[in-house]
Amino acid sequence: MVTTSDGAGAGHPFAGDPVFDLHVGGKLETVSTVPVTGSEELSLAYTPGVARVCTAIAEDPTLTQHYTWVPNTVGIITDGTAVLGLGDIGPAAAMPVMEGKAVLFKQFGGVDAVPICLDTTDVEQIIETVVRLAPSFGGINLEDISAPRCFEIEDRLKDLLSIPVFHDDQHGTAVVALAALQNALLLTGRDPGSTRVVISGAGAAGVAVARILLEAGVRDLAVLDRRGVLTSQRHDLTPVKEAIARDTADHSGRSGSLADVMQGADVYIGVSGGTVPEEVVASMADDAIIFGLANPNPEVHPEVAHKYARVVATGRSDFPNQINNVLAFPGIFRGAFDVHATAITEGMKLAAANALAGLVGDDLTEELIIPSPFDPRVGTAVSTAVAEAARADGVARR
Amino acid sequence: MVTTSDGAGAGHPFAGDPVFDLHVGGKLETVSTVPVTGSEELSLAYTPGVARVCTAIAEDPTLTQHYTWVPNTVGIITDGTAVLGLGDIGPAAAMPVMEGKAVLFKQFGGVDAVPICLDTTDVEQIIETVVRLAPSFGGINLEDISAPRCFEIEDRLKDLLSIPVFHDDQHGTAVVALAALQNALLLTGRDPGSTRVVISGAGAAGVAVARILLEAGVRDLAVLDRRGVLTSQRHDLTPVKEAIARDTADHSGRSGSLADVMQGADVYIGVSGGTVPEEVVASMADDAIIFGLANPNPEVHPEVAHKYARVVATGRSDFPNQINNVLAFPGIFRGAFDVHATAITEGMKLAAANALAGLVGDDLTEELIIPSPFDPRVGTAVSTAVAEAARADGVARR
Repeated sequence: MVTTSDGAGAGHPFAGDPVFDLHVGGKLETVSTVPVTGSEELSLAYTPGVARVCTAIAEDPTLTQHYTWVPNTVGIITDGTAVLGLGDIGPAAAMPVMEGKAVLFKQFGGVDAVPICLDTTDVEQIIETVVRLAPSFGGINLEDISAPRCFEIEDRLKDLLSIPVFHDDQHGTAVVALAALQNALLLTGRDPGSTRVVISGAGAAGVAVARILLEAGVRDLAVLDRRGVLTSQRHDLTPVKEAIARDTADHSGRSGSLADVMQGADVYIGVSGGTVPEEVVASMADDAIIFGLANPNPEVHPEVAHKYARVVATGRSDFPNQINNVLAFPGIFRGAFDVHATAITEGMKLAAANALAGLVGDDLTEELIIPSPFDPRVGTAVSTAVAEAARADGVARR
Repeated sequence: MVTTSDGAGAGHPFAGDPVFDLHVGGKLETVSTVPVTGSEELSLAYTPGVARVCTAIAEDPTLTQHYTWVPNTVGIITDGTAVLGLGDIGPAAAMPVMEGKAVLFKQFGGVDAVPICLDTTDVEQIIETVVRLAPSFGGINLEDISAPRCFEIEDRLKDLLSIPVFHDDQHGTAVVALAALQNALLLTGRDPGSTRVVISGAGAAGVAVARILLEAGVRDLAVLDRRGVLTSQRHDLTPVKEAIARDTADHSGRSGSLADVMQGADVYIGVSGGTVPEEVVASMADDAIIFGLANPNPEVHPEVAHKYARVVATGRSDFPNQINNVLAFPGIFRGAFDVHATAITEGMKLAAANALAGLVGDDLTEELIIPSPFDPRVGTAVSTAVAEAARADGVARR
């Protein structure tokens, strides 16, 4: 056995900084699950033995599910165009986030994960590349790809592939936000069908949150981009925003600016960045619910939010009620992989949100509407619910 | 922590067969190298801490070498067209070999490796896909891609990328064959410049063995495909075979059939499959050297070879003198990665062969011309020699 060079560890440029010290050499490795310490083991795991496994799979491709790592492995695909709040920093600089994501997939879901940072931002090239890579993976997690390209890439890949395709920035956020909102509504005695919701931000997260809230029964919904509420009267909308306008403001009749729609609103969900003026926050309904999910600076700082709202959540770990995707994506893929699902359906996402919300149970308070990522029940609760929903939706292969 | 489903382990189709039992669930996993058991660790390895590492790399891309797993990670790329001796079995069925390769990279070189099985056999598509994937990897190992496509794919990728690109079926075989041949020549008192060599097979391995023997000083060389010796008189040759003909038979003057050129030949290297008739073997020079490298059936069975030759090698582990690529590729990438090499040069390959040959030293006998893959000195000897050669050739970045 040859050990890796220690060169990277010695005197790296940011030595002494705990974040950089932790990152020396990266955060991920590939490890053999079988012993190869002698000729006999080598002849089982590699030639000549392995040839029989290859032949068996060539004759019956479903044996991939038994005899390779593929069914437990997700490809984490990015083009580096929308990394965290940093924007378009390119594929090389995106890698530390993708490695971190892979670490979380394994830690919280027992899912093997391979970070793939692509040197292209072209929609067609990304799609065709992922299709070519697909035999290597049991599922595809799209990550940090900017809107609106992310919508087309996900939709087309879902059509082209028969394995789960999931854009976490959209659906992971949506699932956890819905779980938290369900508990917040419970706490404040509200029903989704009669709750007025404002979503600030019509990027990947905003669109997905709007979609899942519609599926969960919310009827009075206004979604805003920088120019105001998305309505069919506007002529500057992308196709995705047009569709959201039709399904939200066209029914709710809401229009105008953030200040206009916040007046009397029950729920504010910020996935836009920026800051909501305090007087606008003050105009919300009694017992308001405020989720300011931008990181590191929530759209409404919790100190301000608590003056006017009863339930407050953020994306930050240093305040109560953290809306953290890690609550969702590892368990969603674990559940999908456990039943060899061919897709991740809307039903599976709703099931994940319900399972997360249900874990809070009798502990529900204004300060606890969503479990901690380190609650050991989370992964199994989500994966079990997702696997059941996959079976109910007819996408389970076992 | 959620454990993986045990479904794959229970009653798989070939249960009870040791090879298939070993392959249940595959042979590889991804593992975190950093702890993520609480919020504070999460905030270092993931958000918000990781953002600072991303920003630093965006400002100085060379920091990828310090703070990601990229510089220690090789992408093992196949299209499944020439898998072992099985031929074109497709990308899904190729995966067990690629996983095995990844296991060997780690075991024998400390190199992390990701198997990528591509759903395309088109040369242009393979090239453009690998170029797009390149930010994810510190090096590219091409594997089991059929000739002559493999030559163009490797050549073009070497031009397009500034990381090591290595087609193991060509160069791994060539390096180990050269190492073994150097010791066989030593043992039989021969000099490369006055040795008559016959190479049967002009696919990936045959072409690469011919090239490295030329670089090592062999002058009298005949390379054969199914139709006989490659010569400039033939009009059915691919460009790669034409180039080999110019560099071999045009100088040596050899032509005709295998039987023609084997008469009086010092060395036979078989990388073609099939069987050499015994009377042809019998026509070789005294103290002949026979390498029958086809697996599982050598072109000359060792029992036959030993009747007429002094030194005999095969690709099999159950006979002495196994020409096994695992002696080369892990140490070659280890050495290249240790100095952040931008390429794998001819000098690095020759250095690897010399290092391997040198390890036999005073133990040299007819039954021991090449070390065992489990000789613990192999990896370090190869990687050290390769790193030195990279520096000498000006491709080391540190």
